[in-house]
Amino acid sequence: MSVTLEELARRVGGEVQGDGECRIDSVGTLIGASAGQISFLSNVRYKRHLKDTQASAVIISPDDLAASEYTGNAIVSQDPYLAYAKVAVQLNPGPPARQGIHASAVVDATAVVHESAWLGPNCVIEANALIGERVQIGAGSVVGEGTAIGADTVLLPNVTLCHGVKIGMRGRIHPGAVIGSDGFGIALDGGRWTKVPQLGSVQIGDDVEIGANTTVDRGAIDSTIIEDGAKLDNQIQIAHNVIVGAHTAIAGCVGIAGSTRIGKHCAIGGGVGIAGHLEIADHVTLTGGTTVLQSIRRSGVYSSGAPVETNQKWHRNYLRIKQLDEMARRLKELESRLLDEAPGNEE
Amino acid sequence: MSVTLEELARRVGGEVQGDGECRIDSVGTLIGASAGQISFLSNVRYKRHLKDTQASAVIISPDDLAASEYTGNAIVSQDPYLAYAKVAVQLNPGPPARQGIHASAVVDATAVVHESAWLGPNCVIEANALIGERVQIGAGSVVGEGTAIGADTVLLPNVTLCHGVKIGMRGRIHPGAVIGSDGFGIALDGGRWTKVPQLGSVQIGDDVEIGANTTVDRGAIDSTIIEDGAKLDNQIQIAHNVIVGAHTAIAGCVGIAGSTRIGKHCAIGGGVGIAGHLEIADHVTLTGGTTVLQSIRRSGVYSSGAPVETNQKWHRNYLRIKQLDEMARRLKELESRLLDEAPGNEE
Amino acid sequence: MSVTLEELARRVGGEVQGDGECRIDSVGTLIGASAGQISFLSNVRYKRHLKDTQASAVIISPDDLAASEYTGNAIVSQDPYLAYAKVAVQLNPGPPARQGIHASAVVDATAVVHESAWLGPNCVIEANALIGERVQIGAGSVVGEGTAIGADTVLLPNVTLCHGVKIGMRGRIHPGAVIGSDGFGIALDGGRWTKVPQLGSVQIGDDVEIGANTTVDRGAIDSTIIEDGAKLDNQIQIAHNVIVGAHTAIAGCVGIAGSTRIGKHCAIGGGVGIAGHLEIADHVTLTGGTTVLQSIRRSGVYSSGAPVETNQKWHRNYLRIKQLDEMARRLKELESRLLDEAPGNEE
Repeated sequence: MSVTLEELARRVGGEVQGDGECRIDSVGTLIGASAGQISFLSNVRYKRHLKDTQASAVIISPDDLAASEYTGNAIVSQDPYLAYAKVAVQLNPGPPARQGIHASAVVDATAVVHESAWLGPNCVIEANALIGERVQIGAGSVVGEGTAIGADTVLLPNVTLCHGVKIGMRGRIHPGAVIGSDGFGIALDGGRWTKVPQLGSVQIGDDVEIGANTTVDRGAIDSTIIEDGAKLDNQIQIAHNVIVGAHTAIAGCVGIAGSTRIGKHCAIGGGVGIAGHLEIADHVTLTGGTTVLQSIRRSGVYSSGAPVETNQKWHRNYLRIKQLDEMARRLKELESRLLDEAPGNEE
Repeated sequence: MSVTLEELARRVGGEVQGDGECRIDSVGTLIGASAGQISFLSNVRYKRHLKDTQASAVIISPDDLAASEYTGNAIVSQDPYLAYAKVAVQLNPGPPARQGIHASAVVDATAVVHESAWLGPNCVIEANALIGERVQIGAGSVVGEGTAIGADTVLLPNVTLCHGVKIGMRGRIHPGAVIGSDGFGIALDGGRWTKVPQLGSVQIGDDVEIGANTTVDRGAIDSTIIEDGAKLDNQIQIAHNVIVGAHTAIAGCVGIAGSTRIGKHCAIGGGVGIAGHLEIADHVTLTGGTTVLQSIRRSGVYSSGAPVETNQKWHRNYLRIKQLDEMARRLKELESRLLDEAPGNEE
Repeated sequence: MSVTLEELARRVGGEVQGDGECRIDSVGTLIGASAGQISFLSNVRYKRHLKDTQASAVIISPDDLAASEYTGNAIVSQDPYLAYAKVAVQLNPGPPARQGIHASAVVDATAVVHESAWLGPNCVIEANALIGERVQIGAGSVVGEGTAIGADTVLLPNVTLCHGVKIGMRGRIHPGAVIGSDGFGIALDGGRWTKVPQLGSVQIGDDVEIGANTTVDRGAIDSTIIEDGAKLDNQIQIAHNVIVGAHTAIAGCVGIAGSTRIGKHCAIGGGVGIAGHLEIADHVTLTGGTTVLQSIRRSGVYSSGAPVETNQKWHRNYLRIKQLDEMARRLKELESRLLDEAPGNEE
């Protein structure tokens, strides 16, 4: 398929510069694009590629356009990345939803599967599961007893939904994700651990994406909750009774311990760790690699961590961290002595 | 089912306050419980909910009870969380063990499967595997060649046990867990990596729980060992030849590098990283997010890491870490000068 | 099988000390080996076991041999670990490649599977997939539409290769690994996240190993690339459009954010986190637990992180990190005062 630049600009609410009739059939990067492709500039790092791009058109902000010598075809937009996203969807509608039940799928007689749904090869649907309209279940995925999946949700292959989980509409769950495994509830009984039954469930809202090999544990008593519009990347661990607020985005390798409540519209960077029983306010950004051991009650950008250095320098500074408290006391002592002695000291 | 408070108290060795005849049918949180439910107080954070709880009874410590105005029904116990765990098991015995082999399961002719075991849909049991009494194998799980699983162990769906692994009795292995994958053994050969065959196995003791998407690699020569009663949460990586001591609990997202030996009765917090070839003593607690690069030879509580701050403040302090060694030297220099000059200085 | 020490020494290019005719049938650790086994010494930590070893022979460096009283049979090699790797392969050739398609495998009619390949129980090969010569596909693994796998590559059980992925020759992909899941591309649209289609692919070179539950996302436009000879351990997250250079080794639990380029011949320790859009030079070593937020343009060894301490001491030092910038300023102030006052101060 191909579309005119004019048409694309109209769809994304941008202004055309240059030839609105030029036809676009696909997207490309500034550096990789060729004739018939449209690219975009949203990250300043890649500005230098603008002058040499072979793309038939570029999506760009008014400021970047003004600051550049670029004179080719463009869609001028205040938010080039969002405009690009819309263009990319327009040019790549994705495969049509499939329908039916593969001969190798195992579906319990008590499961209710909508006739418009698709169940892939070797997937397993257990007793009393509910599979909604146009739901797509990838090969080898398992839907546990009594689990319900809302309309238009897609499970990629080898996803595991445990028993009694609720998944909303228009979700997308990537391979290897596990939803509803037992929370890590154990109690000491004379030096040995006794399992605490995990009796809650997991409730996942609408328009939620769950990344590959991400795990979301079921609650101990109440449920673990991922609210509408939350987006989770790969290899994330969500412990029992965590609440992830609506429209919060969480990058890869994040771990959130039990009963912590993450606010709405938060942005959590890769590799962040958050301790249990904390509250993180709405609109909090945590930069990559941050460890959070206390609640954060105000929106804002927060960070922790130590800088990378050559191993040799790091060793020297690293050991000094163990002396910090002592250094601070010695500094204070020096100040008190010096300020006593210092002539004309008003302090 | 429902049980009297008296009966529950007797089972957990607690004292009844109030109406021992009141009937309990399920558990709830202090804030969420309704009539017929029993709740518990073990975390000080939730004390404030005690006065408003609608639970028919509460499990509470003598001290918390004395310190509160709570006058409702209670089971008074020195360890409310453990008592709750026992009550929860009593009220929620869980589904009965299933028996038989699903028609879609693939079982090698040489595998030995006890008649009381259950093999779920699309699971695969390879040559010479041994499946013990009442073992439950979830849908899509794979049991490798020559692997043995002890009585009453439960594999949830999509678990992978590689070849020649030994799993003890009463274990519970959650979806996506992988036991017995190759250890990461590579040797440089003229700038290229040569694979070092991983010839050991994995031995997992009795009463071990393995979380979702946790990985336990097989040993290089000897075996990787998880001793009796160890409890592992989700997304943990146990490298080749690690030994995890009996009754040690490990929270999510922990990584333990090769040949490290973790003691017995340790508690390892979420996101901890432990380097290879180390020894961690018995009864060591590592708080969440700690990185351990040296052996810990004494029991105790250990931590590392830098505090979370606003991104702005963090930037300033973060850069200073690179100057720490220099700051320490300058501080010492100042002290030597000042202490020389200081009148009446006895140092 | 058993081989003479002489024969093994010839294969690994080492010198025999002692009885070249002694027969070796397997490998063992210095401490665990018995008659008929060969062991090796490459890690100084284990030197102390040399004198007591029951191994029939030991692979050792000339220096370690000279420094020890060991007089038993040996293969003397400049690189004992590499020599051991070769000996271990020699004595443990591994199972022969299987051939054929298990009755329970689901293979799309349009997939092209070489007659020498093996497809295990319940694996799924989707439309237009290409399975090369002698490729081995483990039980329950899924090969997505249009994905191609080069000759002699082995997929262990429950691996997921998404659509349109290219895997080179002689690869080894461990259970639970996911290759080609969507990159984490989202754009804000009035406070809600819109998905950015992930239109690129994943290209994995020859001789690449991918660990258990490791995830490699497909690119947004261009492809994510793992070059020849790279070795990835377990639980690693490779985000969209990352490039991992040839012969780079990455240990477990590493996360690499989008569009970062890792050089060739790098060694990345366990638990390392690397931010997005960075460049890491060739021959860079990152020690375990390091967080990298800026590009590293020179080869060398780099580290970050704070030392483990008792929790009590850590608390005191931890809080001081928040005062570092202020401490540095106070130190400077003291210096300026003192250096003004100091009699005979040459600075």
